[in-house]
Amino acid sequence: MTEIIMTEREIQQLVEQCLTANGCNADNAAALGRTIASAERDGSASHGLFRMPGYIASLRSGKVNGNAVPSVTRISPAVVKVDGDHGYAPLALEKGREALIEAARENGIAAMALVNVHHFASLWVEVEPIAQAGLVAMAFTTYKPAVVPAGGKEPLFGTNPMCFGWPRGDKPPLVFDQASASMARGEVMIAARDGHPVPMGTGVDAEGNQTTDAQKIIDGGALLPFGGHKGSTIAMMIELLVAGLTGMDFSYEAQKNDNNDGGPPNGGEFMLAIDPNRFGDAEGWLNHSEAFLERLAGMEGAHIPGNRRYANRAKSAVDGITVSAKTHASCIEFINTAS
Amino acid sequence: MTEIIMTEREIQQLVEQCLTANGCNADNAAALGRTIASAERDGSASHGLFRMPGYIASLRSGKVNGNAVPSVTRISPAVVKVDGDHGYAPLALEKGREALIEAARENGIAAMALVNVHHFASLWVEVEPIAQAGLVAMAFTTYKPAVVPAGGKEPLFGTNPMCFGWPRGDKPPLVFDQASASMARGEVMIAARDGHPVPMGTGVDAEGNQTTDAQKIIDGGALLPFGGHKGSTIAMMIELLVAGLTGMDFSYEAQKNDNNDGGPPNGGEFMLAIDPNRFGDAEGWLNHSEAFLERLAGMEGAHIPGNRRYANRAKSAVDGITVSAKTHASCIEFINTAS
Repeated sequence: MTEIIMTEREIQQLVEQCLTANGCNADNAAALGRTIASAERDGSASHGLFRMPGYIASLRSGKVNGNAVPSVTRISPAVVKVDGDHGYAPLALEKGREALIEAARENGIAAMALVNVHHFASLWVEVEPIAQAGLVAMAFTTYKPAVVPAGGKEPLFGTNPMCFGWPRGDKPPLVFDQASASMARGEVMIAARDGHPVPMGTGVDAEGNQTTDAQKIIDGGALLPFGGHKGSTIAMMIELLVAGLTGMDFSYEAQKNDNNDGGPPNGGEFMLAIDPNRFGDAEGWLNHSEAFLERLAGMEGAHIPGNRRYANRAKSAVDGITVSAKTHASCIEFINTAS
Repeated sequence: MTEIIMTEREIQQLVEQCLTANGCNADNAAALGRTIASAERDGSASHGLFRMPGYIASLRSGKVNGNAVPSVTRISPAVVKVDGDHGYAPLALEKGREALIEAARENGIAAMALVNVHHFASLWVEVEPIAQAGLVAMAFTTYKPAVVPAGGKEPLFGTNPMCFGWPRGDKPPLVFDQASASMARGEVMIAARDGHPVPMGTGVDAEGNQTTDAQKIIDGGALLPFGGHKGSTIAMMIELLVAGLTGMDFSYEAQKNDNNDGGPPNGGEFMLAIDPNRFGDAEGWLNHSEAFLERLAGMEGAHIPGNRRYANRAKSAVDGITVSAKTHASCIEFINTAS
């Protein structure tokens, strides 16, 4: 048996057990449990239980504060600062969300500067609830260097995801969440294993030269940004919005300051929320944007970002969630080996 | 003689003469003159005098109001609405700028919703002064359909540029300004003329199939977004931020509502301004981000966006600005043929 079927609730409980056994308090464990269970439920296994070894390693090394008490402060009329107290990001994000939503409704637009968090999850999990509350939302974060600036030879940028959510009234919101890298590193590893080439523009070899040889990208090479120079400037913009504004580490600084235990480094995040009712078209914006999205959805070959996640979610509710038995066993091991 | 040398001031005066002869008042002509002269000065000929036929056509057709009086209203604590009164965008942008900067300094972040403008210029011209004032700035606008959603066959998105500016203290700000299209249409036309192929992913033919044949893209085909699906979602996001929030036309609506006289359609624009001094790292952000940018600038093959424009600007101040004699003659013709 290489796979087992679990419910979302069972996954959440398993994560909570793993985390509390290894030094997390209940609040932090529950918030991270919700994040990981949401990823598994929506078909994003790469951000689900698969990440537990990294999370547990950084609890055990003492890098992450399992008992973090995030604090929320309105530092400017439209800026909410959340200090994560060196814990995992999910509890800080949950604590800051209401303040961000309130500031956006008051002012039309507001930002959240998240500092001293360890972020290791997808951004859509954080953006979706804000869009569900009727606001437009954006989120950006950095990591450690993995992406070479266009034209360059060495990595400087993190995989630097950006996420955008748009509210759709009674429908689930439109949410896209995309890394600035040309391809996920995991996909390049699979191509290398199978001996398949990757498209030119995916990455560079150890000498910094572009290559289609996936193995050479893995062996000391690095990824390139998506979309050449244009994706590269977006990766750079994310570094500036996140580290430049919040004062947290740029990706290259995080690399130096991290203990490299396999878990996420200490860092920051930048979020925006916009109230479409405060932009002068309160009556019209929903029908107007729905007409556009229906037109997009009706085009042959095109699709609305996020709808695959919702389809996976609906399927998970009926059929349960398939989890690799090996991943499950490693979680049990984390509980049994806790000191 | 196929080229002539002009100063920035001479270009500005030529534009003002063209526009006032064709029905613009002095304020509108001066604002557009500054925008066009800035483009020529910084080496962006495609957004300079080359655009005069479109500007003049839309004055002569009566589509654009040459005597527009833009109005500026703070509709929410952090949202400035500028109604361009159906004029060209530059005067509305100049009138709204101070209000946007003031709102951002007050609140930490602020947005500008620009409505009823005809936008036909580069975004960097608008973003640079806000970044020079010490704020982070972003701008987005739509146009008419020219870009096919990734996976689709027909254009839905405009070329939809986005622009980002980052203040650098005493140095000129970092500013990038990039279209969501894979390549400028003008570049594809040059490839077609020279019989050169374009990279796969540049565009589709009239049947909506991807092609490397530049001529087929020009002959009833269309451009694709930069960076595949990821660039496509950015083009979509820009439609939503601009038309969805401001209530102005989506690109596909602009196509239907425009008189297609060759000038820009009536539309909207969305801008953001952020005060880095209001994000909790007022003392540190400038040195911190400068260290990052110096690291980027020092990497072999990498560069700081916007620096080529500044180099062109410095050269123009010394050597003057080279203008095609044909373009210059067409401007004189617009003055002589004004009714």
